[in-house]
Amino acid sequence: MASAIPADSVGIVTPQQAEFEQGLVLACGRTLERYTLVYETYGQLNPQANNAILICHALSGDHHAAGFHAGDDKPGWWDGYIGPGKPIDTDKFFVVSLNNIGGCGGSTGPTSINPETAQAWGPDFPSLRVRDWVHSQARLADLLGIQTWAAIIGGSLGGMQAMRWALEYPDRVANCVVIASALKLTAQNIAFNETARQAISSDPEFRAGHYQEHDTIPRSGLSVARMIGHITYLSGDGMGEKFGRQLRSGNFTQGNDEPVEFQIQSYLRYQGERFSTSFDANTYMLMTRALDYFDLAREYDHDPVKAFSHAKCNFLVVSFDSDWRFAPARSKEIADALMAANKSVSYAEIESSAGHDAFLLPNARYENVFHAFMKKAANELNITADRNDDNA
Amino acid sequence: MASAIPADSVGIVTPQQAEFEQGLVLACGRTLERYTLVYETYGQLNPQANNAILICHALSGDHHAAGFHAGDDKPGWWDGYIGPGKPIDTDKFFVVSLNNIGGCGGSTGPTSINPETAQAWGPDFPSLRVRDWVHSQARLADLLGIQTWAAIIGGSLGGMQAMRWALEYPDRVANCVVIASALKLTAQNIAFNETARQAISSDPEFRAGHYQEHDTIPRSGLSVARMIGHITYLSGDGMGEKFGRQLRSGNFTQGNDEPVEFQIQSYLRYQGERFSTSFDANTYMLMTRALDYFDLAREYDHDPVKAFSHAKCNFLVVSFDSDWRFAPARSKEIADALMAANKSVSYAEIESSAGHDAFLLPNARYENVFHAFMKKAANELNITADRNDDNA
Repeated sequence: MASAIPADSVGIVTPQQAEFEQGLVLACGRTLERYTLVYETYGQLNPQANNAILICHALSGDHHAAGFHAGDDKPGWWDGYIGPGKPIDTDKFFVVSLNNIGGCGGSTGPTSINPETAQAWGPDFPSLRVRDWVHSQARLADLLGIQTWAAIIGGSLGGMQAMRWALEYPDRVANCVVIASALKLTAQNIAFNETARQAISSDPEFRAGHYQEHDTIPRSGLSVARMIGHITYLSGDGMGEKFGRQLRSGNFTQGNDEPVEFQIQSYLRYQGERFSTSFDANTYMLMTRALDYFDLAREYDHDPVKAFSHAKCNFLVVSFDSDWRFAPARSKEIADALMAANKSVSYAEIESSAGHDAFLLPNARYENVFHAFMKKAANELNITADRNDDNA
Repeated sequence: MASAIPADSVGIVTPQQAEFEQGLVLACGRTLERYTLVYETYGQLNPQANNAILICHALSGDHHAAGFHAGDDKPGWWDGYIGPGKPIDTDKFFVVSLNNIGGCGGSTGPTSINPETAQAWGPDFPSLRVRDWVHSQARLADLLGIQTWAAIIGGSLGGMQAMRWALEYPDRVANCVVIASALKLTAQNIAFNETARQAISSDPEFRAGHYQEHDTIPRSGLSVARMIGHITYLSGDGMGEKFGRQLRSGNFTQGNDEPVEFQIQSYLRYQGERFSTSFDANTYMLMTRALDYFDLAREYDHDPVKAFSHAKCNFLVVSFDSDWRFAPARSKEIADALMAANKSVSYAEIESSAGHDAFLLPNARYENVFHAFMKKAANELNITADRNDDNA
């Protein structure tokens, strides 16, 4: 396996665990008395501790962003962008990627044991807002000896965390990269999330979220939720290019009552089924609600310019032209508000047929823009590569 | 009630029933030995029998397109466009609107009794293609003494029937109005239909389609299917204008773990629940499959120009700019192929924020375009209003 690891990979990585015993007061008013964060790191923290980057994950993401877990042949979810010589260059930066609280990747969430009841939290896990994740991440920074992040980076829901960081801890963020995100969701976006939640909650196996006690999982509901998500993360044109109307089986000739199946149908069902056995339903409910609730400027008189006036970092805002779930118009609202607030902002709309998923996929212009911004960030902070590398 | 009927309404209408005893050989190879069609008519058939219009319904439509059923205070689904002085002017035209076979509005479909088993057909109802509907509609025309339709008109799946008519019976159609339709569905469209079907079929109450025998209905699955449909029939901007992020209950203040609900959430759930008790799940499966299968040019070497070369009628093709489920690009493909085939075609892309649903809603330019085309159709066929009416 080791021999198969590419030269520009961060290699084999092992998740770490941090325990927090100090209660975290949540936006909902409840307190999480203690919690665990699972995280991975790539690269080395420099002696000045000024080269750390925080990766914030999206709805179904986790801490495993780059490199390989021992025995796995698939790398982390953002391996294309994190590694030696890559836009998030681990020769220069110390990268921290965590699973958020409420998640199901090992950090404290609905599948964890509630110390008060000695049962899994399940649906009784407190409802979370993006700011709760930001506060819990700040404690992780404290633990790791990171006063100021060189950059906080996230796509989609991750971008919302990065923006919230810039407002909650303006002195602790030097750069903020907000990819395929939004100041707040549109009604259509909330509608898709609601439909996905409805698919889950109406699955009898969901049992009002207490499925763990019944030793079951709401597979079909989660599967439909994922299918909805999957369609909306791709672009119509991208789906057309990839699947068209190609058939998996059957045919259309007259005199044939066999079921006809298009490739897109079996592909989607496969994606749904795979997700339904690997992701926790209560986490899905909680994460989509946090997405719906997020409204960056709510406490700033609903004025994003006023909100961003509190930020002190440089921003890179990126959107993808075929992304209709987090459309370029949403990213432009972010960039416009930042400019109106006199902040340093670079904005790029990238051509891609991959829809919202484009933020995870190879794309030359996206890589160049990202690379240039991160290089500038490194230069401004006097961060140099820790090894001699022509690509660095 | 009668006094509340507007002057431009077709008034109180009573559905009629036609029985067909001659077997209908279906595209799937099976034969429907006998079937019933439920239909309504508005206006009067003239002595030449050249003023008849056929309305083809879409996925969840039925025969009740205009006027009021006795005791109802809501008119039919296309009442805005059918009536005295309206684009489909019942002072001039004799309008026939039927519920298609496979439907659940009273025509023979999955909820009907299969004479062979004396049980409801349920999931054993033969799979249908658009051409089967066209053939069954031709028999209804025969029964009503209509050799040639002045126009066949349909939106969405209804437009597919209208186009198929123009190819199957070129001598029996004078005009064809194809609204918000497509030559075939895109992969994304099939994907949405597949997800809706998956929501239904994974509902335990669906019981592989045999829910009637178990005296139950797959309410939650149908509800999620309708929610998916509903989101995609509206435009993102339209939803934003109508609902924005307005709350139904709860609030976002810190220290509040009450559930928050946006208006769009309760609206969608209400739509889903209402649909789930009024529409048959097997019909939904069958209708969406017919949509997926439809490919106008399949038997014409996949060449729509070659397909349309068989048509003899005039065409009006209409799309709506915010309709992303049946996007203007799909209607342009129809119009382009018609022009390449040297057919008479008018094409209009109408501005609307209502998405796919726009074809059902008031819209001045749409009404004008529609009105003008129908007026020309009437003039060409020497059809005059049967009463003196300044608006006619």
